[in-house]
Amino acid sequence: MNYDQIFDAAIDRLHSEGRYRVFIDILRNKGAYPNARCFAGHNGPKPITVWCSNDYLAMGQHPKVIAAMEEALHDVGAGSGGTRNIGGNTHYHIQLEEELADLHGKQGALLFTSGYVSNDATLSTLAKILPGCVIFSDELNHASMIAGIRNSGAEKKVFRHNDVEHLEELLKETDPNVPKLVAFESVYSMDGDIAPIHEICDLAEKYNALTYIDEVHAVGMYGQRGGGITDRDNAAHRIDIIEGTLGKAFGVMGGYIAADKRIVDVIRSYAPGFIFTTSLSPVLVAGVLASVRHLKASSVERDGQQAAAAGLKAMMREAGLPVMNSTTHIVPLMVGDPVKAKKISDILLAEYGVYVQPINFPTVPRGTERLRFTPGPQHTEAMMRDLTSALVEIWDRLELKLAA
Amino acid sequence: MNYDQIFDAAIDRLHSEGRYRVFIDILRNKGAYPNARCFAGHNGPKPITVWCSNDYLAMGQHPKVIAAMEEALHDVGAGSGGTRNIGGNTHYHIQLEEELADLHGKQGALLFTSGYVSNDATLSTLAKILPGCVIFSDELNHASMIAGIRNSGAEKKVFRHNDVEHLEELLKETDPNVPKLVAFESVYSMDGDIAPIHEICDLAEKYNALTYIDEVHAVGMYGQRGGGITDRDNAAHRIDIIEGTLGKAFGVMGGYIAADKRIVDVIRSYAPGFIFTTSLSPVLVAGVLASVRHLKASSVERDGQQAAAAGLKAMMREAGLPVMNSTTHIVPLMVGDPVKAKKISDILLAEYGVYVQPINFPTVPRGTERLRFTPGPQHTEAMMRDLTSALVEIWDRLELKLAA
Repeated sequence: MNYDQIFDAAIDRLHSEGRYRVFIDILRNKGAYPNARCFAGHNGPKPITVWCSNDYLAMGQHPKVIAAMEEALHDVGAGSGGTRNIGGNTHYHIQLEEELADLHGKQGALLFTSGYVSNDATLSTLAKILPGCVIFSDELNHASMIAGIRNSGAEKKVFRHNDVEHLEELLKETDPNVPKLVAFESVYSMDGDIAPIHEICDLAEKYNALTYIDEVHAVGMYGQRGGGITDRDNAAHRIDIIEGTLGKAFGVMGGYIAADKRIVDVIRSYAPGFIFTTSLSPVLVAGVLASVRHLKASSVERDGQQAAAAGLKAMMREAGLPVMNSTTHIVPLMVGDPVKAKKISDILLAEYGVYVQPINFPTVPRGTERLRFTPGPQHTEAMMRDLTSALVEIWDRLELKLAA
Repeated sequence: MNYDQIFDAAIDRLHSEGRYRVFIDILRNKGAYPNARCFAGHNGPKPITVWCSNDYLAMGQHPKVIAAMEEALHDVGAGSGGTRNIGGNTHYHIQLEEELADLHGKQGALLFTSGYVSNDATLSTLAKILPGCVIFSDELNHASMIAGIRNSGAEKKVFRHNDVEHLEELLKETDPNVPKLVAFESVYSMDGDIAPIHEICDLAEKYNALTYIDEVHAVGMYGQRGGGITDRDNAAHRIDIIEGTLGKAFGVMGGYIAADKRIVDVIRSYAPGFIFTTSLSPVLVAGVLASVRHLKASSVERDGQQAAAAGLKAMMREAGLPVMNSTTHIVPLMVGDPVKAKKISDILLAEYGVYVQPINFPTVPRGTERLRFTPGPQHTEAMMRDLTSALVEIWDRLELKLAA
């Protein structure tokens, strides 16, 4: 048994497929976002423009968020010092859970250390509490939902992406007397498309299934108060469990679910991934509180993001670049090859000071490797023009196909 | 199918066993730790003394930690804005990984959003990379290690707590040609005892098994530089993977592993729980950097903690209280009944302004419910005297048995 050989072989596989990941070493410049500093491969930090951040609305730089975090840091200190049950439950946590419950019109909410953990812990626990539960899962669901479903040990039936007819087929063929859970996302972050939420809820009602929606790429960004697509489409009351993140549009870190009190209490009481972990730092929680409250009242950031996304898509299309058919703030550009996607990204960083990460397997299916741009309210028209002309030059240099 | 009934029944089970958890709503007072404010059940916050925090050395209140976090907050903002691979890799993360690798004398380290996630992600991924792997697990291993082992799908063989003879029996009976991993903790946090690390490493060498140690209740607190029990006992070089937390003695939040470069690269490249999650906020990472660097050079906090723990144990023993046989900084007091443990805790909080959480199943086995005190350098002798006399009065009132 030679362990080193096995580990080397695992890494070699990644190199040979062109998908070994190299992390770019950066620091953002507060107040000048999306500008940042890059530390890789040269002397001293070099200025770059970030085009792939999930801090979609730049709330991680918002003065209210920074001020709230600074205040908490000086009032109570750095960490919570314990699990929620043992010393780590602060007044901030309770206030934020109330705020998030209100955001989604639910009775309660529950904080987790990340969106990944909220999906994994909630889905795996729910299906264990419901004996014989069958989970119906969209084929493009995020890795964290897949992990939670697998870890639950429950039977899983995968329906084709956003395909309600296929979902109904699967529901129909399943024993009416077993518990059922339909798990899906509102915004799919790599394609930028949106689930038919009301149609899925219709089916869930017809077949008496619980519904679980991942809104991590929508909370803060859609709806009058930033409650996500379920807020925009007036569907929140039809969904049993809404899951969200505090690390993307809200700009900080952490995850949560919102649901009725009974479900929140069950997950709070039974999920190991919630129970046995140090709670979120009160500094983070204070920052999120300020962020959620701000975005409930202000639509400037949402409007700015939508305008930027529409502008960039139009510019890229006009230039003949292969923009994918996104109906959201996400602007994916299809490349279809992991080595080329990395090459474009490398040139952008080295020659143009543009940072956009190539997206490869297992984040997206093989053969659909892409670049994924996330324009926000702080990206100017001049930045978009520079980006588009750089891409056209690189497309030409690498002899890639333009659409027109 | 009535979902509400199933959920209600799950909660009713907890009530009937006396182990429904009520979170205490507190805020610590920075600079006056272990003093805090409690918000539950009365008007306005009431002053309390916290006796159950895992911010063992009060580093969450240390001026260097606070200053570093404040600086990062103003330099780069609140959150990282992405996964480590997509926009969320900052210079702070890279520096902290170097610092933690150095702390344990390893080639590399890898950050996770929590200690729970580091155990779950690393163990489940390792065993998948090593085909046919058998994991040997101490029966008292933490829930997060159990989750990782279960989620790996690997065969698990549980050895009796700290029992090297039993471990050898299990190793001996296992096919010499399959990969093996021995997973254990250094300090077991609910009993306060320590693993026979060198003896376990002898066996691992003899039977060609990898070794994985959880040092979350030891890092920062043991060894010349705070590298944990493996540092104190000069055993770090014999362990393949050392796992630690940034949320206990280091006072902030997060988790990590330290290992050789090859293993770190495999986990970095293959673990979904690492890949698909927003990275730690740079504010937290900056705070931990300051904390780790401070505790590498300063032993004042460690010495103070050890003195406080020895003092409290001696006082409790002298008063005839049933202190368990801990050889570490943890001071557990056996109660043996969930309802009584909660009752003692309630009286301490309501009448004495002392906050210590009752520890019940599933954190400890049924019938071994206890109170768990974590005295630190900031707990004074006067606080200990007050605590001990309060406990003696309550023991008497509830007609519990004294040891002497």
